[in-house]
Amino acid sequence: MFRTHTCGELRASDAGKNVTLAGWVQTVRKFGAITFVDLRDRYGITQLLFGEELNTALDAQPLGREFVLQAIGTVAERSNKNPNIPTGDIEIHISSFTILNKSAVPPFTIQDDTDGGDDLRMKYRFLDLRRNAIRKNLELRYAVNRSARNYLHENHFMDIETPFLIKSTPEGARDFVVPSRMNPGQFYALPQSPQTFKQLLMVSGYDRYYQVVKCFRDEDLRADRQPEFTQIDCEMAFVEQEDILNMFEGMVKRIFKDVKNIDYSEKVERMSWEDAMWIYGNDKPDIRFGMQIANLKSAFLKGGKIHATGELINGAGFGVFDNAETVLAIAAPGCSEYTRKQTDELTEWVKRPQIGMQGLVYIKCNTDGTYKSSVDKFYSEDKLKAIADAAGAKAGDLVLILAGREERTRKATSELRLEMGRRLGLRKDDEFKLLWVLDFPLFEYDEEGNRWVARHHPFTSPKPDQIDTMINNNPVIENAEKYLEHPYSNIKANAYDMVLNGNEIGGGSIRIYQRELQEKMFAALGMSEEEAQHKFGFLLGAFEYGAPPHGGIAYGFDRLCAILGGSESIRDFIAFPKNNSGRDVMLDAPSTIDQQQFDELQIKLDLKN
Amino acid sequence: MFRTHTCGELRASDAGKNVTLAGWVQTVRKFGAITFVDLRDRYGITQLLFGEELNTALDAQPLGREFVLQAIGTVAERSNKNPNIPTGDIEIHISSFTILNKSAVPPFTIQDDTDGGDDLRMKYRFLDLRRNAIRKNLELRYAVNRSARNYLHENHFMDIETPFLIKSTPEGARDFVVPSRMNPGQFYALPQSPQTFKQLLMVSGYDRYYQVVKCFRDEDLRADRQPEFTQIDCEMAFVEQEDILNMFEGMVKRIFKDVKNIDYSEKVERMSWEDAMWIYGNDKPDIRFGMQIANLKSAFLKGGKIHATGELINGAGFGVFDNAETVLAIAAPGCSEYTRKQTDELTEWVKRPQIGMQGLVYIKCNTDGTYKSSVDKFYSEDKLKAIADAAGAKAGDLVLILAGREERTRKATSELRLEMGRRLGLRKDDEFKLLWVLDFPLFEYDEEGNRWVARHHPFTSPKPDQIDTMINNNPVIENAEKYLEHPYSNIKANAYDMVLNGNEIGGGSIRIYQRELQEKMFAALGMSEEEAQHKFGFLLGAFEYGAPPHGGIAYGFDRLCAILGGSESIRDFIAFPKNNSGRDVMLDAPSTIDQQQFDELQIKLDLKN
Repeated sequence: MFRTHTCGELRASDAGKNVTLAGWVQTVRKFGAITFVDLRDRYGITQLLFGEELNTALDAQPLGREFVLQAIGTVAERSNKNPNIPTGDIEIHISSFTILNKSAVPPFTIQDDTDGGDDLRMKYRFLDLRRNAIRKNLELRYAVNRSARNYLHENHFMDIETPFLIKSTPEGARDFVVPSRMNPGQFYALPQSPQTFKQLLMVSGYDRYYQVVKCFRDEDLRADRQPEFTQIDCEMAFVEQEDILNMFEGMVKRIFKDVKNIDYSEKVERMSWEDAMWIYGNDKPDIRFGMQIANLKSAFLKGGKIHATGELINGAGFGVFDNAETVLAIAAPGCSEYTRKQTDELTEWVKRPQIGMQGLVYIKCNTDGTYKSSVDKFYSEDKLKAIADAAGAKAGDLVLILAGREERTRKATSELRLEMGRRLGLRKDDEFKLLWVLDFPLFEYDEEGNRWVARHHPFTSPKPDQIDTMINNNPVIENAEKYLEHPYSNIKANAYDMVLNGNEIGGGSIRIYQRELQEKMFAALGMSEEEAQHKFGFLLGAFEYGAPPHGGIAYGFDRLCAILGGSESIRDFIAFPKNNSGRDVMLDAPSTIDQQQFDELQIKLDLKN
Repeated sequence: MFRTHTCGELRASDAGKNVTLAGWVQTVRKFGAITFVDLRDRYGITQLLFGEELNTALDAQPLGREFVLQAIGTVAERSNKNPNIPTGDIEIHISSFTILNKSAVPPFTIQDDTDGGDDLRMKYRFLDLRRNAIRKNLELRYAVNRSARNYLHENHFMDIETPFLIKSTPEGARDFVVPSRMNPGQFYALPQSPQTFKQLLMVSGYDRYYQVVKCFRDEDLRADRQPEFTQIDCEMAFVEQEDILNMFEGMVKRIFKDVKNIDYSEKVERMSWEDAMWIYGNDKPDIRFGMQIANLKSAFLKGGKIHATGELINGAGFGVFDNAETVLAIAAPGCSEYTRKQTDELTEWVKRPQIGMQGLVYIKCNTDGTYKSSVDKFYSEDKLKAIADAAGAKAGDLVLILAGREERTRKATSELRLEMGRRLGLRKDDEFKLLWVLDFPLFEYDEEGNRWVARHHPFTSPKPDQIDTMINNNPVIENAEKYLEHPYSNIKANAYDMVLNGNEIGGGSIRIYQRELQEKMFAALGMSEEEAQHKFGFLLGAFEYGAPPHGGIAYGFDRLCAILGGSESIRDFIAFPKNNSGRDVMLDAPSTIDQQQFDELQIKLDLKN
């Protein structure tokens, strides 16, 4: 037996016991004839004491960092206790030991604050994974996995595995494809999600399905995307939206309790997509703080119909506002005493290419009741007060105003709000605020193709009272300029996103379950009957044999874990992530393959350069 | 709300309740003005009563098989109870109903004994999945999954997800490969198992890992293989073989208890690979019954050194035995009165190409103490008795003897034993018998390449006391004829298979964890240093930084479920299986892909025909 105890479990009450530990050498400290070694494993750190008196002087066999050691000795209470670790009351007086394996000097320190850069840590991921910080992330990930599974099991969901080698039906993101040796010239695709399979399972009567499952998207990777990612994927039959919302806010609350020991007892707030866009400027608002957007002037919301006329600001001769499509304001609390340098810096911030605004107007709501702004020559103090009031500003606040084209301005104001929230410490890692965003538009207008695209996916049902609107209208957009007047612009989806602290963590919908409506949807998206039959014939076929009403949701497991871990980055919550080029730098994958493999697969390269 | 109860939960005690059910129409039976409908869901079947008196005559809206129905009514105790189903004491008097969806007439009956053939059932898998028999299989699968996870969790194992897009290192089976769009000319591979990753996790200190994970092998499919399959994959650090055997027989016993309510309290039997081959003719013996093989004569066992000289049978002038390399016998209990027709049929059975023997010799051990055989003219009755005794035959038994080349004869005798066991009812679906097979040869001799191949995989450690034999001997085989005399022939692996009822359900090994030994292993398998570095450099590198002793096991989840379900076929325990050509006939996958996909991936077809 390699060990009797782990490095995290011995206490003062174990004093006198003869024990065997095994683990990694964290530190070695010599004090004359005595040597202290901190031995580490997954469970903790225990101090070992070596010395001549114990016949275990280390001179002949020096220990280095990360050596693997098996040590036998007696548990003793320490005189110099370490209250910072659970085993800090004891040490082991070592009577014999074996070096199980040596270690070269690691390329970076195995500590919370490592000196290793990202690239080095990725190349030596097996060492990076030894660090406490990463281990805690993976432990949290496992705890979330376990908690979700337990909740779903208790609610009669069944884990049913769906296939990984499926059919390529490119729609939205690109598929990864897999050449079939047994069917030369043909390819499997890796699933972007088990969407159609879980719907088939509902048709098959498995009315509560779940899976914690890998999915694949061949997209150009942003900093925080991975080509393979994990979903908690769920589907229920005989449900309406309300049933799904209740079931899954229950799941997330259970995860909060199990993983973070947080009692999230309040009802999860709900907000329509239109309100989210209008009040927060995006569809996944962070509602941990207010700083809501005041719509001083607005053209419209894409797929919605909300306007603001601009009566408060128009006609003062300030061309930037007069000519702007949209003017939006937020009130940064307690910032009225910002210096010129600070407001200039904020102006530079909104002028960065990622934000893309021309400038920033501010109004200082001084604590003495006066108002001072960067547009004093256009607006009287009364007018400034009225604008500040509209923005919900109080004495001591700083009103920040952006103006320009609707879409860019709204996005920029949303970003500015989040940035100010961050700077003012209003976005706390340990505060969690859930939100359901509802009533998304069913379709988005694709200017390039002058056609409708599905905002969620083509299996999402319209709101029940809008099914007729969809069936009874021709999807063709006669006048591209006036697409907003097409009845399809106002059809709302029976869809819902769950938002946590400004991140979409889950999304789903009530599905279409009638063949006729599904065909209409494919047609609305510009798919020919042949194409629909080729890609999704199996689903249309299944809908002919008694498909029940159903709906579901999928959670982005990697992101959920990152947020619960208080991090913005998913990469440190994945054991073996890929870099931004989709490469595993530890494995050096992808890589070339043998000619024999090409021959067997009957494919060859066709490199453009 | 679509339903207040499922179709499996109402009882006599619910009489008088107003309920709403939803499900599928199983049967419709008219009796005058009254119609009985059996409504089915995943949970059971409930009888509904429609009629004019209830204002729910069905004349206007006839119900067909598999229609999806929502029905509201009152629970009533039945006069004519059905004791065969849990809801058989009640029926629902329906006051209103809605047809949620219609169904075309299914192409086969949704019943335990369906009239649908395999191909039809695969094409309409979503209907096949509605059948009780398949649903019970998937429920069993989920129960096994859940039970294994619970056991492993309680034993401090952590579920850690390993990547699916990895590096191609063909070794043994073929990899499925995935062209990388972002890295043109390069390919990912889908994992044949997470082997190297779980070993890296041990190096990283996650000393107990598990995963229920999809794996992929591009092999020509036999009837009972799938290109994608699921493993319960586990690894432990700081363990010896004994620790692993104890931990995982515990897991399987837990599954027996949770899933089959079987208390498997006895210690799991253990047998060396040599004994298994010698006594049962194969390395995964079904020990539910005896009928052990008598080695009347034997050349040797590949990788072992057991011989039998043939003194009982040689020299009687019977050329078939005299000239045979190997002569093996089994005693079929109670079969001494087999007719000529029956022994002829058995002879034909062993002559089938799959078995490939020239003939069959039998000895009838008559209940009157006489012996009668098909080789009476060569052997005296005393001699026959001696042979029958050697085969362990008792009065009333039939001794069956096969002779020929060692490998074929042993395999044929093993098959004949299993066939006789089946015919005699000795292999009961509801009896479960576990066995550990140990001490496999580390290497197998590959005649074609005159080289060693790893019997398990190249990461398997030799037995501790044979590591020196491996390190101190040159792997080169000077004399192919005498490969058995090479020291490598006798090196035993520190490996173990778990066998259940004659099926290998799990296999694993203690791994190599020293770089030097791993390099020696790669070299022994004929890999150049460059090749080893290219394929497994990351693992060799990891072994330099404090790799702990470790080992693990992987269970074939699909097969384990099939055996627990009393079936030989894994396909009905997989929700969406592929056929023998690796096709999903429901999806019609694999399929062609678009030119745009070829262009983006920078590959093209290179079809040979």
